[in-house]
Amino acid sequence: MANFQGHALPGSFFLIIGLWWSIKYPLKFFHEKGKKSRLSQQQQRLEVIEAAVRTVFSVIGILAEQFVPDGPHLHLSHENHWVKLMNWQHFTMYLFFAISGIIDMLTYHSTHIVPLGVDRLIMAVAIFNEGFLFYYHIHNRPPLDQHIHLLLTFALFGGSISVFLEVIFRDNIVLELFRTSLVILQGTWFWQIGFVLFPLFGAPEWDQKDEHNIMFITMCFSWHYVAALCIVAANYSLVYCLLTRMKRHGGEIIGIQNLKSDHTYQAALLSGSDEE
Amino acid sequence: MANFQGHALPGSFFLIIGLWWSIKYPLKFFHEKGKKSRLSQQQQRLEVIEAAVRTVFSVIGILAEQFVPDGPHLHLSHENHWVKLMNWQHFTMYLFFAISGIIDMLTYHSTHIVPLGVDRLIMAVAIFNEGFLFYYHIHNRPPLDQHIHLLLTFALFGGSISVFLEVIFRDNIVLELFRTSLVILQGTWFWQIGFVLFPLFGAPEWDQKDEHNIMFITMCFSWHYVAALCIVAANYSLVYCLLTRMKRHGGEIIGIQNLKSDHTYQAALLSGSDEE
Amino acid sequence: MANFQGHALPGSFFLIIGLWWSIKYPLKFFHEKGKKSRLSQQQQRLEVIEAAVRTVFSVIGILAEQFVPDGPHLHLSHENHWVKLMNWQHFTMYLFFAISGIIDMLTYHSTHIVPLGVDRLIMAVAIFNEGFLFYYHIHNRPPLDQHIHLLLTFALFGGSISVFLEVIFRDNIVLELFRTSLVILQGTWFWQIGFVLFPLFGAPEWDQKDEHNIMFITMCFSWHYVAALCIVAANYSLVYCLLTRMKRHGGEIIGIQNLKSDHTYQAALLSGSDEE
Amino acid sequence: MANFQGHALPGSFFLIIGLWWSIKYPLKFFHEKGKKSRLSQQQQRLEVIEAAVRTVFSVIGILAEQFVPDGPHLHLSHENHWVKLMNWQHFTMYLFFAISGIIDMLTYHSTHIVPLGVDRLIMAVAIFNEGFLFYYHIHNRPPLDQHIHLLLTFALFGGSISVFLEVIFRDNIVLELFRTSLVILQGTWFWQIGFVLFPLFGAPEWDQKDEHNIMFITMCFSWHYVAALCIVAANYSLVYCLLTRMKRHGGEIIGIQNLKSDHTYQAALLSGSDEE
Repeated sequence: MANFQGHALPGSFFLIIGLWWSIKYPLKFFHEKGKKSRLSQQQQRLEVIEAAVRTVFSVIGILAEQFVPDGPHLHLSHENHWVKLMNWQHFTMYLFFAISGIIDMLTYHSTHIVPLGVDRLIMAVAIFNEGFLFYYHIHNRPPLDQHIHLLLTFALFGGSISVFLEVIFRDNIVLELFRTSLVILQGTWFWQIGFVLFPLFGAPEWDQKDEHNIMFITMCFSWHYVAALCIVAANYSLVYCLLTRMKRHGGEIIGIQNLKSDHTYQAALLSGSDEE
Repeated sequence: MANFQGHALPGSFFLIIGLWWSIKYPLKFFHEKGKKSRLSQQQQRLEVIEAAVRTVFSVIGILAEQFVPDGPHLHLSHENHWVKLMNWQHFTMYLFFAISGIIDMLTYHSTHIVPLGVDRLIMAVAIFNEGFLFYYHIHNRPPLDQHIHLLLTFALFGGSISVFLEVIFRDNIVLELFRTSLVILQGTWFWQIGFVLFPLFGAPEWDQKDEHNIMFITMCFSWHYVAALCIVAANYSLVYCLLTRMKRHGGEIIGIQNLKSDHTYQAALLSGSDEE
Repeated sequence: MANFQGHALPGSFFLIIGLWWSIKYPLKFFHEKGKKSRLSQQQQRLEVIEAAVRTVFSVIGILAEQFVPDGPHLHLSHENHWVKLMNWQHFTMYLFFAISGIIDMLTYHSTHIVPLGVDRLIMAVAIFNEGFLFYYHIHNRPPLDQHIHLLLTFALFGGSISVFLEVIFRDNIVLELFRTSLVILQGTWFWQIGFVLFPLFGAPEWDQKDEHNIMFITMCFSWHYVAALCIVAANYSLVYCLLTRMKRHGGEIIGIQNLKSDHTYQAALLSGSDEE
Repeated sequence: MANFQGHALPGSFFLIIGLWWSIKYPLKFFHEKGKKSRLSQQQQRLEVIEAAVRTVFSVIGILAEQFVPDGPHLHLSHENHWVKLMNWQHFTMYLFFAISGIIDMLTYHSTHIVPLGVDRLIMAVAIFNEGFLFYYHIHNRPPLDQHIHLLLTFALFGGSISVFLEVIFRDNIVLELFRTSLVILQGTWFWQIGFVLFPLFGAPEWDQKDEHNIMFITMCFSWHYVAALCIVAANYSLVYCLLTRMKRHGGEIIGIQNLKSDHTYQAALLSGSDEE
């Protein structure tokens, strides 16, 4: 859907997932530090729910691309002409994310069947596929339109490589936070694309051939990433503060002692032990 | 062989190997989980046979490229002109796969001579070489022809990197399944190329300069990969079901208990242990 | 700041940091070999100070780019035109390094909160961002100007990959020395850019379109790296000699015995043990 | 030196080193399998000698590039013109290999000073630098000349990545053999470049703009790699046969029993153990 809504919809999806991850992964990280493998059952259920939500998002995207009034309604060709290829390409992107969601559900639901890491592989493939389609999507467009989509592929290919690394280095909090920040970046950038290409509320059109606009947009992409990093950092701190307070007020599980002992461990790591 | 058969032949080879792998690797995975190193002898023999079959495929390809009626018949140059360079390039691709097959046979036959990992390295080189030759193969062709071959190189370079990783992370089921899916993709895509460039049964020619055809073909490549993933998933499930049923009906080896205990292990992995 | 000072300033920053690292990492390496985790407290304080200095450098850069007489003074657009985009882009580069500095401070100050590796990730992102902005920064400039900045991106993307590897292979002395050499290269190259594009003291202008100048500058970049390697090697040797002498004259910590025993260990590594 | 000798000289250097490595690494591999860390002293001395020879080769290259009759004789510029930039670029390539040789000598001579892995890092840098200079070396040349040098960079960048991996995965026989094959490829390809660009013995000139010549040269590069692989395989087998025979005739160290027991070990690895 080449309009503002068509960019706001996936933008919101990615933003929601990114924000959720920026809560989930710090939570998981502090829990694991506090006490080993305790939330097993609960956590697994949570992962299944998350994957289900992601699948639902993708299915909404699929349906929206096909059945909006000016969509292809599942017609691929008509009298030797391809019908609404743009919508079909977006459909394909959502399709991969739907598959990734389903695989995630299976992985966490039937842990003894699906080998660990397949979920990350398929997620990496889905993200790569989005970048791949975008890359060949933007020929014959005005320079600014082309560039603003090209910037997106940086987030996508970077994310794809990072998620692929998780196949081998699973449960690495740094890679997980990196992925989180890139997903948030993607979300906000989709909104930015919408605002630039389809100005709302009578805002002036952007001159799509002005070199200065392209320079600004490049820099703006960096600023979005700064914002994404700030969001991740803020939520991370929030989780830490909440967990610390819950501990202080009694009823909860993660011990500051545990965190402290871990502190000693990390301090040891920092100062001169050969852990390579 | 720039005709339909010249694409159907390698397509079928890759497809057969891919389908076989989509059975073999799940089988190996569940066997290993059930009981350690039990099928040693048998498995090794199987690997040698597989490698032999792959070598035979490659030799068929080599012979076909050289000795079809309009082939070069081992003549490389004639009166200061190169003879049938296309066939020679295809010949070179098959040659590398033949070498890879031979190295595989040696690796599994004489395990105390050839160091483990050389087989994967040579396979990665063979796949890279195919991509490398295709990449420089397609200059001065119509855009659609160029693009449809370029897409193939994505599968090839991706596969080459993945197989190279297996030098270090050997027997990683995720990398093995990834490789399997890419080989199936390659197989079906060769057939697709054949259908697009040499329409059969009086089907209409494709306009090789139409931008829409290129857009469609790009998306079509993604769909092929979805199909490849579905094939791998289906065969994986099939193997799992068969093994489970064999167990239930008595006479077989892999214990559901073993799978279950492994389940507990994986569940532990999933929930908060630091395994990095 | 498109003048000599605008290149000398970041050049000096990178040079100072590089020189400091070329002392710090050898020191850390020999200390760790001599005795495990001894300087913990002290070292941590040092790391915090270093990160603070880097943050201050970045803030100086930020302020300089904004508030020099011909800077944008925090105005981004004026009557529908972007104001001083060059300065804003440089500002963005410094901003990322400021963030990296802050994260480093947090990592070493509150080791039980920030997960190890996030500091390296953000540093890799900051370096990547610098390369990314430079890459899209140089369109529409004369060939020599373009090329001399493009060469810088080699150091930047190389450095970014190397630092990213440190997320996983932390405290690897080889990667640390590699990073050090690339930072020194960056520092000297900024000075080189300044000298080439804004000749001082009435030196003749460089012909920015001469193919030979471009060839020379490419080679000159290699020479800068030779110089950077020599500086790292010299400082490394210096640290080794000083530590050895301090030992011999009594009062110090690192034992030559320890180094010797380590020698035996490394010799064992070198000769035929399978440490892969 | 833009003539046949200027390509035959480095070609021969690389070929000699490659052939030596194709003997050395198999030898080391079988020794290590037979008995742990036995040849320590001897092996170390050998490594120092090898590094010294490589340094001498590089110094010969440096001197040849500077002091051939039409060389620059250490003059860099003359009346505001750069002097013999081609020779200076080749000089720079040799310079990096000289540095790499010196670092190798230091690493194996003073194992307690230079950290393991620095030798591989510098070698990777030297190879990368060669590729980097070649890449920017070939603008404004006829297509065939450009292409034949571009192919070389494939061997160079591939080699650089592979050697860089050895920083982390040191003493991996597969990576070592891969490096060996690429060095041999480089050696034979330099000779090929010489024959193509400067035909000897009155051989006809190659048409440097003919598309077919470029296609043939691309394929020819693959054939060179086949040859390189065959050479490595032949020498590997030779070493194995010699060691086996020496064992059988009494006086030597490496036990077939040891090889056999290793065989059992590898067979176990091959059949279903989780070694990931």
